[in-house]
Amino acid sequence: MNTSEENFSPERRAAVLVETLPYIQHFSGETVVVKLGGNAMVDDELASQFAQDIVLMQSVGIKPVVVHGGAPQIGSMLDRLGMDSQFVDGLRVTDGDTLDVARMVLVGKVNRDIVSSINIHGPLAVGISGEDAGLITATSRHEDLGFVGEIQAVNPTIINGLLKEGHIPIVSSIGADDKGQAYNINADTVASSLAAALEAKRILYLTDIEGLRADMEDPESHISEITSSDLQNLIDNGTISGGMIPKAQACLEAVEAGVGSAHMVDGRISHVILLELFTDSGIGTMVLPDQEKK
Amino acid sequence: MNTSEENFSPERRAAVLVETLPYIQHFSGETVVVKLGGNAMVDDELASQFAQDIVLMQSVGIKPVVVHGGAPQIGSMLDRLGMDSQFVDGLRVTDGDTLDVARMVLVGKVNRDIVSSINIHGPLAVGISGEDAGLITATSRHEDLGFVGEIQAVNPTIINGLLKEGHIPIVSSIGADDKGQAYNINADTVASSLAAALEAKRILYLTDIEGLRADMEDPESHISEITSSDLQNLIDNGTISGGMIPKAQACLEAVEAGVGSAHMVDGRISHVILLELFTDSGIGTMVLPDQEKK
Amino acid sequence: MNTSEENFSPERRAAVLVETLPYIQHFSGETVVVKLGGNAMVDDELASQFAQDIVLMQSVGIKPVVVHGGAPQIGSMLDRLGMDSQFVDGLRVTDGDTLDVARMVLVGKVNRDIVSSINIHGPLAVGISGEDAGLITATSRHEDLGFVGEIQAVNPTIINGLLKEGHIPIVSSIGADDKGQAYNINADTVASSLAAALEAKRILYLTDIEGLRADMEDPESHISEITSSDLQNLIDNGTISGGMIPKAQACLEAVEAGVGSAHMVDGRISHVILLELFTDSGIGTMVLPDQEKK
Amino acid sequence: MNTSEENFSPERRAAVLVETLPYIQHFSGETVVVKLGGNAMVDDELASQFAQDIVLMQSVGIKPVVVHGGAPQIGSMLDRLGMDSQFVDGLRVTDGDTLDVARMVLVGKVNRDIVSSINIHGPLAVGISGEDAGLITATSRHEDLGFVGEIQAVNPTIINGLLKEGHIPIVSSIGADDKGQAYNINADTVASSLAAALEAKRILYLTDIEGLRADMEDPESHISEITSSDLQNLIDNGTISGGMIPKAQACLEAVEAGVGSAHMVDGRISHVILLELFTDSGIGTMVLPDQEKK
Amino acid sequence: MNTSEENFSPERRAAVLVETLPYIQHFSGETVVVKLGGNAMVDDELASQFAQDIVLMQSVGIKPVVVHGGAPQIGSMLDRLGMDSQFVDGLRVTDGDTLDVARMVLVGKVNRDIVSSINIHGPLAVGISGEDAGLITATSRHEDLGFVGEIQAVNPTIINGLLKEGHIPIVSSIGADDKGQAYNINADTVASSLAAALEAKRILYLTDIEGLRADMEDPESHISEITSSDLQNLIDNGTISGGMIPKAQACLEAVEAGVGSAHMVDGRISHVILLELFTDSGIGTMVLPDQEKK
Amino acid sequence: MNTSEENFSPERRAAVLVETLPYIQHFSGETVVVKLGGNAMVDDELASQFAQDIVLMQSVGIKPVVVHGGAPQIGSMLDRLGMDSQFVDGLRVTDGDTLDVARMVLVGKVNRDIVSSINIHGPLAVGISGEDAGLITATSRHEDLGFVGEIQAVNPTIINGLLKEGHIPIVSSIGADDKGQAYNINADTVASSLAAALEAKRILYLTDIEGLRADMEDPESHISEITSSDLQNLIDNGTISGGMIPKAQACLEAVEAGVGSAHMVDGRISHVILLELFTDSGIGTMVLPDQEKK
Repeated sequence: MNTSEENFSPERRAAVLVETLPYIQHFSGETVVVKLGGNAMVDDELASQFAQDIVLMQSVGIKPVVVHGGAPQIGSMLDRLGMDSQFVDGLRVTDGDTLDVARMVLVGKVNRDIVSSINIHGPLAVGISGEDAGLITATSRHEDLGFVGEIQAVNPTIINGLLKEGHIPIVSSIGADDKGQAYNINADTVASSLAAALEAKRILYLTDIEGLRADMEDPESHISEITSSDLQNLIDNGTISGGMIPKAQACLEAVEAGVGSAHMVDGRISHVILLELFTDSGIGTMVLPDQEKK
Repeated sequence: MNTSEENFSPERRAAVLVETLPYIQHFSGETVVVKLGGNAMVDDELASQFAQDIVLMQSVGIKPVVVHGGAPQIGSMLDRLGMDSQFVDGLRVTDGDTLDVARMVLVGKVNRDIVSSINIHGPLAVGISGEDAGLITATSRHEDLGFVGEIQAVNPTIINGLLKEGHIPIVSSIGADDKGQAYNINADTVASSLAAALEAKRILYLTDIEGLRADMEDPESHISEITSSDLQNLIDNGTISGGMIPKAQACLEAVEAGVGSAHMVDGRISHVILLELFTDSGIGTMVLPDQEKK
Repeated sequence: MNTSEENFSPERRAAVLVETLPYIQHFSGETVVVKLGGNAMVDDELASQFAQDIVLMQSVGIKPVVVHGGAPQIGSMLDRLGMDSQFVDGLRVTDGDTLDVARMVLVGKVNRDIVSSINIHGPLAVGISGEDAGLITATSRHEDLGFVGEIQAVNPTIINGLLKEGHIPIVSSIGADDKGQAYNINADTVASSLAAALEAKRILYLTDIEGLRADMEDPESHISEITSSDLQNLIDNGTISGGMIPKAQACLEAVEAGVGSAHMVDGRISHVILLELFTDSGIGTMVLPDQEKK
Repeated sequence: MNTSEENFSPERRAAVLVETLPYIQHFSGETVVVKLGGNAMVDDELASQFAQDIVLMQSVGIKPVVVHGGAPQIGSMLDRLGMDSQFVDGLRVTDGDTLDVARMVLVGKVNRDIVSSINIHGPLAVGISGEDAGLITATSRHEDLGFVGEIQAVNPTIINGLLKEGHIPIVSSIGADDKGQAYNINADTVASSLAAALEAKRILYLTDIEGLRADMEDPESHISEITSSDLQNLIDNGTISGGMIPKAQACLEAVEAGVGSAHMVDGRISHVILLELFTDSGIGTMVLPDQEKK
Repeated sequence: MNTSEENFSPERRAAVLVETLPYIQHFSGETVVVKLGGNAMVDDELASQFAQDIVLMQSVGIKPVVVHGGAPQIGSMLDRLGMDSQFVDGLRVTDGDTLDVARMVLVGKVNRDIVSSINIHGPLAVGISGEDAGLITATSRHEDLGFVGEIQAVNPTIINGLLKEGHIPIVSSIGADDKGQAYNINADTVASSLAAALEAKRILYLTDIEGLRADMEDPESHISEITSSDLQNLIDNGTISGGMIPKAQACLEAVEAGVGSAHMVDGRISHVILLELFTDSGIGTMVLPDQEKK
Repeated sequence: MNTSEENFSPERRAAVLVETLPYIQHFSGETVVVKLGGNAMVDDELASQFAQDIVLMQSVGIKPVVVHGGAPQIGSMLDRLGMDSQFVDGLRVTDGDTLDVARMVLVGKVNRDIVSSINIHGPLAVGISGEDAGLITATSRHEDLGFVGEIQAVNPTIINGLLKEGHIPIVSSIGADDKGQAYNINADTVASSLAAALEAKRILYLTDIEGLRADMEDPESHISEITSSDLQNLIDNGTISGGMIPKAQACLEAVEAGVGSAHMVDGRISHVILLELFTDSGIGTMVLPDQEKK
């Protein structure tokens, strides 16, 4: 970025700021949930830019909430510990020891790294697990899967309290039942449920894809905007398949639960959050409630 | 500005925003007083950019307060009304009728135009005269000058109330004594006194000059930073003379009364406020308290 | 008034205060809008008494809001500037220059004089124009009339904020559209719309008449109380005519929009506001919603 | 008072209100303690006027606190119960049964009658005994006197809470020690101690005398204003004697503890509180701190 | 109680506290009204334990409100004063003098003793009569009974204010009409009406009986829990008779007005309030709304 | 604990509660820091009792803050991962990988287990690491030790925010420098520094010892209370040695930094926190500031 100083005249830099004004006003005081995934979690440069983007959001009056998972990191630690896993329908069967490792990696490693990269800019981020203050009540998704959880209830009191004080919550996708048993939950689902509970204006899913395509083989068929019912149709008729389905489902859940819009954006692009929020450039795919298609 | 869209790649625009982050954080929650004068008041394009800059400040968490005078506009109206004025030491002798015209122009025309240009962006600006809620208590500067006033006390309660509610106060340089008699006061002095009373972090004077020069004849002798005692020396030894003296005096008053720094900036430059606050470019002249020279 | 000290025994003065108690309790914490017009604006003695009355209201816990116009003062300034006006249906055709003069006179002269006369008693009054903080959104009443406005929306946030802080808002009858264009609006209508938006308990119109008459020729036919539907009938059958119609219409608008009662009172009577609020004497004409006729 | 309606023209009534304005503004938001004693407690007409005065004070923004004793009423009840008392230095020796009767009369009869007469005007008055919420911590004044108490500490939390909610506290002159033992305390002393703890602006003692005299035999020697040290001299040199001494002492205690001024006023005069607070007439005797004599 | 120190090992004492935890959490922040009657008012040991129980409730986050009557104490004082009473349907005919005595005893003696016993533990209790701040508006129950009152309205503002400040209100069963006339009201009814107005979670009636019996002759027929409609049946079929009827009626009124449950408990048992609130032991009789029988 | 129901009569259980009242009142609203260590972290029964004790504290109005370390758990995980460590002066040399494991175990495992065991009782506990919201700023203790940290500053804003909302913070002994680098810090030191920053009334260290002894060989020489200077003497003269020194040092630091008292208690005793706070039994060793020895 150092080169930009050389390339931008002061006048052009002022122009950029002024162009950003309507976007800043649009999001002022609103909650935006960002699901962090893919390369943006592991590439140091992207991770540092992610932290800058989140802090910039907060500094201009937006309330960002970050949700993260970490399946690759969990798998890596299980390997280091020589613990084998079985999989059912692509989901890792999670016994007590595996859950302990998953939780340890998510809460004690992945979450911590995000908190640290943000707090270089000030005493802002606070790591939260779904067990804290009863944030996420979970139950077992299926008995064969062990402690893989699904969400029963979200109590956003702790998140609202942190936002009110100007903090940035970083949420690990763990929940607990009323016996204190923890569960590992799909982070996309945690993000959409939390966005709904927080009445967020927008939810962004950072992934390693460019967005939805009408034809997965054709990069030119990029979909920049779609309603929830049209998206449902694409799922039903098989246009969307494979790894795209969970992302699409999470977007559907979010907008159907009242979130203003859900966006799949390519986390491999530098400062993709700023581009998504503060320009009209049409990065990624925006999912809108049926009645609000522009 | 429309051309910028074409010239800037999204990546560069993100880079500009990220570079601005430390400045935004630095001024977050702080009060900044801007004295508006010169071309920026009468050139439509500059006036529109001024409004954008003020709204942008407010939208990123700064508390801007605008102070304005309007000697040329007052003179013009007096001419239209066929009212002649006498001058003593360059100051207009102000009888009751003249005061009425001056106040009418400042509060009813100049102030209104600033309010209107800002409120295009939202219900933000509120016009205030120094008579409102006892903001400025004044007395006669000299009996020969009539109702030309000097400040006796500033009660910033009304301004603080408006800032707390997220409003942008636009202040006309009028005061009143305890009999309800109004006075026309030098706007530079109103700005510095108000900045002191509000414990502002910074005061900007927009004028039609590029800043101070060590040698008025030599544009290369631009002074970008000076302490208050050094500035006093330049006044005392005659380096600063003529119309520059009141500006320099106002800067001195402000920093000596506790304002963090005072800046003379060239209001003829587009978006000069953004450049001054959000870049290191060193536009204009910064006056610092003696102990804080960087 | 000095003579009263001689005439009143202390006992009688105490008696007056005690008699006032139920009225004070009745209006405690309530908003009362006062439309100032006619002689009370131009007669120094009446203007001074008006200020006393408003301050007394505030000091006993009522929330007064003053609205004013100023057609004669505008006309006079236009004459001084040699600007002729055309009239359509009795309304001045208002081009850009005329609007500038009207706004300058209302906001910069008439409003200021009211603020000053009140603030002799303390730092209480704050002058507000309908453009401030988006108070009054207006549009053109008719294209032939130019910038004569009608009200589209009232956003009383700024007024409520000032009242909460113990201030007395003095409102000029100017509005603006979303382009920042100002309009001159009938002050009676501004008063009734504002009273409705503030959920005022009462609105008083100070004029130079004694109140409504069933027979305009017969001073004995004074109407002290009337319902809105009866008042509408008087308008429809022509009993009320000429200059009385706008006042009557404003009263109707106010009570139909939820204001407790609307009162036409004779602003030429000393301290007529106190007499109206704090005695049963039946000064002027009270307009009540249909269901509340006593 | 009904006759006043006939005698006062509306204009004169308005004049009275306007004359009262500066006094109302002077006391706005201030605490004023009124010690009720003498005829004003037992004469129905005076008691009713007292209630009106207190409610009027509250309705114009003053915070009144009433303190009362009731020696005659206690004596009367002891007589009805056939209980004899001994006296030491004019003070009733108070055993447990006597204390029970005293407290019952003060809290259960005298206090209740004051509360009732005020609450005819609204849900305002709340009866409080010094035992409530630890208001007055007391100890025995002298072992020979039994449960006659002197004040050790005043904790005004409960009174401040009631004032904040707009209530009017009516305080009985009872205290308690940390064992829960109640004491009967001189009400003048309770009033001055409470006024000091509340940082009251003024304390009024209603008694059956016209005020202090320089010569007790000469009604013409009325003292309308005196400093605390001059008052102390009058006590020391014997000018003030007998029943006047405790009143004078209480006034001294109050002003020396920081109360703005202490006033002895004649409770036999109708609405004497209003006359004292809202006119310059100079009723009674005002005791001022030494440095503030006008 | 001193012996307990010897008998309880620290471990057992900790165990008791831990067992209490769910009960404390259940009542945290809730209002519980306790009607004090019978022996607990006159037995010094029981009264002291009552005070401890109320303070313990407050110290663990419950909001206790105490209501009391005092018919025996009133009767005793009337006897001492040689005042005879007539009775109609078991109710004392109450003329003005009798009312004065009743009020004096309740407010000035019984209430005071409760306040004192509680405030040994801290500045907590505040005595309140139904006349204070318009708490209870009453009217005559029957013209033959004089100033025996029935409740027309409850305005709990003063009680809510005291609870919010951490105080414990002790309420005497007196009310007043809008003329300031006081009435003596059945304390059971005051308690149920107040519990309803405060949206209390529970109301406890302390009496000298063990609770309801299905067969009054058979101690084994104790009813530990009953719905309001079943209780109504027991009244209708005569199973409940005599002095039990008013208690049963008050319980019915409370639960029908929205109180969570009403409990008749034996005030002769040490610390019966703690046992009732903090154990499952099933002391006394619990009356539940129909839909909530466990 | 089930047996207690059988052994305790209701009366005795009430007696226990009443005896606890003064202790509850003493700690009401106060902050108490508990350093959890030793068996209480790994024995399921003790851990469950610990959770009960902490929740009971919170439910009676105390503000508990838990601090934990976890050296044995870190060592165990390093062993499972086959990572060897070097030790300098008994401190583990901590490179980047080791720090990652330590943080993962503390924040992701030990902290989580404490949070879960508490939240069985309600949505109360929130896990916090010293990196969150800038709680603990650290630097390297010694370059040879790597990322073993010492505390430079404590910013308790996040903890105060959580306490104000009724949450129970569980704090892991991790800090970070301004580059975002994490450090592992001695948990005893974190506890004492945090207690000082929170102005805690008391700090409890749960360890596997009974408390200090004047003669380590003689169990009879138990020290139940000691001043800080006496404790310093015992360290200086070698009476306290070995593993006791860090505990003793932490106690000294806490009381010298303003904490009311510091207590070493035996975490192997059931409900030792309740016994320590709510009885006079004299468990463990209390360290007092010099001036406050009882």
